[in-house]
Formats: sequence, structure tokens, C-alpha cells
Amino acid sequence: MNQKIRAAITALGGYVPEQKLTNADLEKMVETNDEWIRARTGIEERRILTEPGKGTSDLCAPAVKELCEKRGIGPDEIDGLIVGTVTPDMFFPSTANLVCDKVGAKNAWSFDLAAACSGFIYSLTVGAAMIECGRYKKVVVVGADKMSSIVDFSDRTTCILFGDGAGAVLLEPNFDGYGIMDTIIRSDGSGAPHLHMKAGGSLRPSSYETVAGKEHYIYQEGPAVFKFAVKGMADVSAEILERNNLTGDDIAWLVPHQANKRIVDATANRMGLTRDKVMINIQRYGNTTSATIPLCLWDWESQLKKGDNLVFAAFGGGFTWGATLVRWAY
Amino acid sequence: MNQKIRAAITALGGYVPEQKLTNADLEKMVETNDEWIRARTGIEERRILTEPGKGTSDLCAPAVKELCEKRGIGPDEIDGLIVGTVTPDMFFPSTANLVCDKVGAKNAWSFDLAAACSGFIYSLTVGAAMIECGRYKKVVVVGADKMSSIVDFSDRTTCILFGDGAGAVLLEPNFDGYGIMDTIIRSDGSGAPHLHMKAGGSLRPSSYETVAGKEHYIYQEGPAVFKFAVKGMADVSAEILERNNLTGDDIAWLVPHQANKRIVDATANRMGLTRDKVMINIQRYGNTTSATIPLCLWDWESQLKKGDNLVFAAFGGGFTWGATLVRWAY
Repeated sequence: MNQKIRAAITALGGYVPEQKLTNADLEKMVETNDEWIRARTGIEERRILTEPGKGTSDLCAPAVKELCEKRGIGPDEIDGLIVGTVTPDMFFPSTANLVCDKVGAKNAWSFDLAAACSGFIYSLTVGAAMIECGRYKKVVVVGADKMSSIVDFSDRTTCILFGDGAGAVLLEPNFDGYGIMDTIIRSDGSGAPHLHMKAGGSLRPSSYETVAGKEHYIYQEGPAVFKFAVKGMADVSAEILERNNLTGDDIAWLVPHQANKRIVDATANRMGLTRDKVMINIQRYGNTTSATIPLCLWDWESQLKKGDNLVFAAFGGGFTWGATLVRWAY
Repeated sequence: MNQKIRAAITALGGYVPEQKLTNADLEKMVETNDEWIRARTGIEERRILTEPGKGTSDLCAPAVKELCEKRGIGPDEIDGLIVGTVTPDMFFPSTANLVCDKVGAKNAWSFDLAAACSGFIYSLTVGAAMIECGRYKKVVVVGADKMSSIVDFSDRTTCILFGDGAGAVLLEPNFDGYGIMDTIIRSDGSGAPHLHMKAGGSLRPSSYETVAGKEHYIYQEGPAVFKFAVKGMADVSAEILERNNLTGDDIAWLVPHQANKRIVDATANRMGLTRDKVMINIQRYGNTTSATIPLCLWDWESQLKKGDNLVFAAFGGGFTWGATLVRWAY
């Protein structure tokens, strides 16, 4: 009998910079206050990569090294490495290429995947397909963003939200029914006006004018994005339960993108989950974009049990959104 | 019996802008001349997207529309769309998101893939895995770059080389032994110093200093890249023949990345191919980075026959490189 290959997560790594940026720090930079930030976003502090000459690849490398150590493999055993990010070190080479060089993954193909805040779920879906097609045995999926490089620290509506970090998972073939069981990814480019970065690409290359216009920062229309996000993330999370004949009772953990506690609450309610089954670490890291989901897994790793059903869910720029059902493998 | 799903190319689309930039035009811009350019690169003219407010997504959209028309499908039938590019419209949303919106691919997931000049072969490998895993039925893979947005038109060593364009292929499941038969992708981030874009990403965000320093353009050490490229592209092309027990006699067409005729010649020689089996259109388009291979297929489509063995091969920034063996399906 031909057994279906599933892609199982077999190890985790994570990294956040030492440097903390607290709500008290932000009070000194823009007109805001700790109470307001906590009430609206749930965030207490973020980690920021302040060392000059360091980019997103420097967040990824320690996460990938940790993952290899935990699994007891050499980086040269990695067949492929995907970095989901909106803040690559540069347009080319890919950040994934640079990470492989930094960790010594000499035998890996590597590329970056751009799908904004859903970058990790998209990258995981692609990484799983690379395992399921039978061609590769060890694929590393990293979600990483140095959001501080595109945050306008004079804009009080966005600078309070984001942080820097990286999380990595190792995918390996599994024949015993563990791993990525199902995944849904969606997109709608008509959402672009509400959440984007105006300049720096081929549409509007960098110039004195774009720098002067602060066009290299996150532009976000918060209320519009919130409205779409609540519906998108809850719908897709409910859908993945339904089409796998599961209810909230069958789910051990919801692992949501950490953009906003109210979006997470709406998703948990829709799935019929109590609050104790929802991973939330936004208070410590803020929104690290592609890194939120793997950083949750990293923080909760010791509480995960073999056979646990997890739902990962995200919504963000694009718009892009998605949900993945995972049966935990260790 | 469980039949292996292969991903077959079932339709093609392409697009190059109307506007030509000839060697004679370049003679007026930098110290160069037609004879020298032809002798060193084989290039006679390139196409350039000059309309303001247009980015790489505007190159992709007509290519995807053509592909849908040729195949007789509506854009809403597309399950997923990947854009391989180093010149996305912006860092987010992804160019793929924008293309889906422009063509009306309302039901597609979409993301960008960054792997420099090997972007098409990487994207095709990922697209094939998405079909082979059984989850999706119609995946569009686009290779597209608006290289004119990152070319320094005062640098005579690079401005002669690049052009703008987009090519797209539709992948569908095939159970009759046609399609992507094998693929090899590789990377080596230690090549970054020789070919990169210095600023604009998280390592060195856009600033007055980076604009003044012309750091948003292609930086290339031609001779170093040439040396690696000749070996990398020839090695991987020979390897894909060997591991599939094929010789040059079995191959109908080599479809090489169009960076330099001498790299292509070295690859063809290593594979034992005569020049009449090699697709070359660099004279008309220059190096369109991710678009070179699908634009060759687009130009040669009427000459391709069902069952033809094709080898796609590329080498570029990263370094990244790869080769794909395709049995033509129509």
C-alpha cells in the first residue's frame, strides 16, 4: 500500500533580540501611554534589533542553529530553507541564501517567500508540499521580520504595534498520521490600499522624494484592516475545523497571528475555544509579522503533546490569510 | 494502483513592453557601442516599461490573461499564483496579490518567491510540488522583472545587459507521464558579495545616504559571477541528464537563462547539444532575470511538440542555480 507522506514539524527554534522597547520607552518618543497601548493592543514590550549592519538574516540564523541542535542534525543535512518575510535583508540575494551561508547549510536550496503577515502559514504550506511531493527530506521554514526597519517611530498609530523576531520549524516526512493534516491559504489583492509599503519597489523606486515622503514605512488603515481580519481569520479557522469534521473540543491549541487580541478573541469564539487553549505572547513581542506563530510554538513547546491538534491562523497584508491544521508529532 | 501526479505545463503567456531600448539608444547615454555590446553579450535591444506608475505586476497581468485565454479558462479557475521576481512592486503586498486582483483571479492564493535569476526555476519547482502534493489543480507560475527599475543607466557595465518582461506558465496535474519529470535547485549565499543590491531592505533601509550612494541598483562583479555561472549551470544541466539516464541526443531543446551567450554555449557543449537545439532570444530582450526562460518558451511555443524533452537551466544572484527536465505535454 502506498502510504501518504505527511510533513511533520520535528523541531523548533526561535530568536528575539536582547534589546527591549517598552511602553514606557515609547511614551518618551511619541504621545502615547502604557495604559492606552495595553488596553487597545495587549502589548507591553517588544524586542528590537538595534545593532547596526544587522538585518533579518541575523534574526533567522540563531533560530535555525537552535533547531538543528535540538534535533541533533548538522546544518549540512538541511535540504531546503524557506524564509517568509516582508523585511528581507535586500531584494537579492534572498535572505534565505544569506541564512544558509551564516549557519553552514551548504546543501540546501533556499528562497524567500513574500505573503506579508501570513508569510509563515504560506511558507509552511509550501514547505509541506516540498516534503509531500517526496523530493526532499528536511525542509526548514522560518518566519522572520525586522519590523523596526520599516516602522516610523514618529507615527504613534503604528510604532507601538511591531517588534523584531524569528521562529523556525523543521519539516520531515511522517507516515504515521502526524504533521500538517490540512491547510487553507487565500489572498485578495484588492486589500492593498489598506496595508502596504508605498515605495522601494519597482512601482516607486527609492529616491530623495520617497525618503522625504516617509514612503518606506508601513502604511496601515487600522479600522479597515481590523474589519477584514476579524472575518477572514475566523472564517478560515472555522472552515478548517468543519472540513476535517472537528469541533473546538478536538483542538488542543489555537496558534494565532499576534496582531491584535480582539481579532484573536473573535477567532477563538467562532471556533468554540476557551481562552486557556489560545497561545498569546503579544504582550512580550508585539506583532513580529511572519514570526508570530513560530515564536508562539517556541514559547509553548514544553506544553505540547504528541497527538495534540493545533490550528495555526493568520491574516494580514495583501490581503492574505490562512489556517493550518497540525497533529503534533512529538 | 496509485498513479504519480506530475505537474504539466498546459499553457503559456508572455508580455514585453512596446518601448525598445536599442544599442544605438545606449550609445547616446553611456560610452559604449553597438559592436562591443553585440560581441560581448549578444544583445541588440531590450524592452523597457517607461510608463510612470507601472510596476512588475503590470508586466505579469497581460501574460496571465493570455495564458487563460489560450487555455480557455477563467481567471477565477486559478487555484494559486506564484510570481518569481527580484523587482516586486513593493515589499508588501506581494506582486502576486496585485496580479490576482488585476486579472480577476479571485479564488487564488498568491505569493512572491525571491531567488534572483533562478526565480523561474525555483518557482516552477515549488509550483510543481503544489500540484504533486494533490492539493491544487491549476497553479500559475510567473517569472517577471522590471529590471529598468534597478538599473543605473549611467553605469555602462550593467545598463546594457537588462530588460523588462514577464512570462507565465499554467501547471495542471498529468497522469500520463508528461510534465516536470525532475528538478534540481541549489544555492550558495557565499556568492552574495559578487551580485546584490546594497540597500532598500532591512540590512540597510532606504535613506538620503543610500539614494545618494546609488545603492538601489544592481551591483555585479561580472567576471566573478561569470566564472561561477559557467560551472554551476553546466554542472547542474549535465547532472539532470545523467540521473535520468539521458544524453544530449534525447533532448529537443535547452531553454537557458539568457544572461550571457558564452555561459549558454558552455552549458550546451557540456550537454552535447548542437546550437540549433538551444533557445536564444537575448538579442531581442536582454536579460529579463526571472522572465528569460518563460519568454523563450513563449517565443518557441509553435515549435514545441508533445513528448519533447526540454531542459531549463539558470544561474544567478545568491548564488542560486538549477535545472528542470520537462516532457512537453501538448
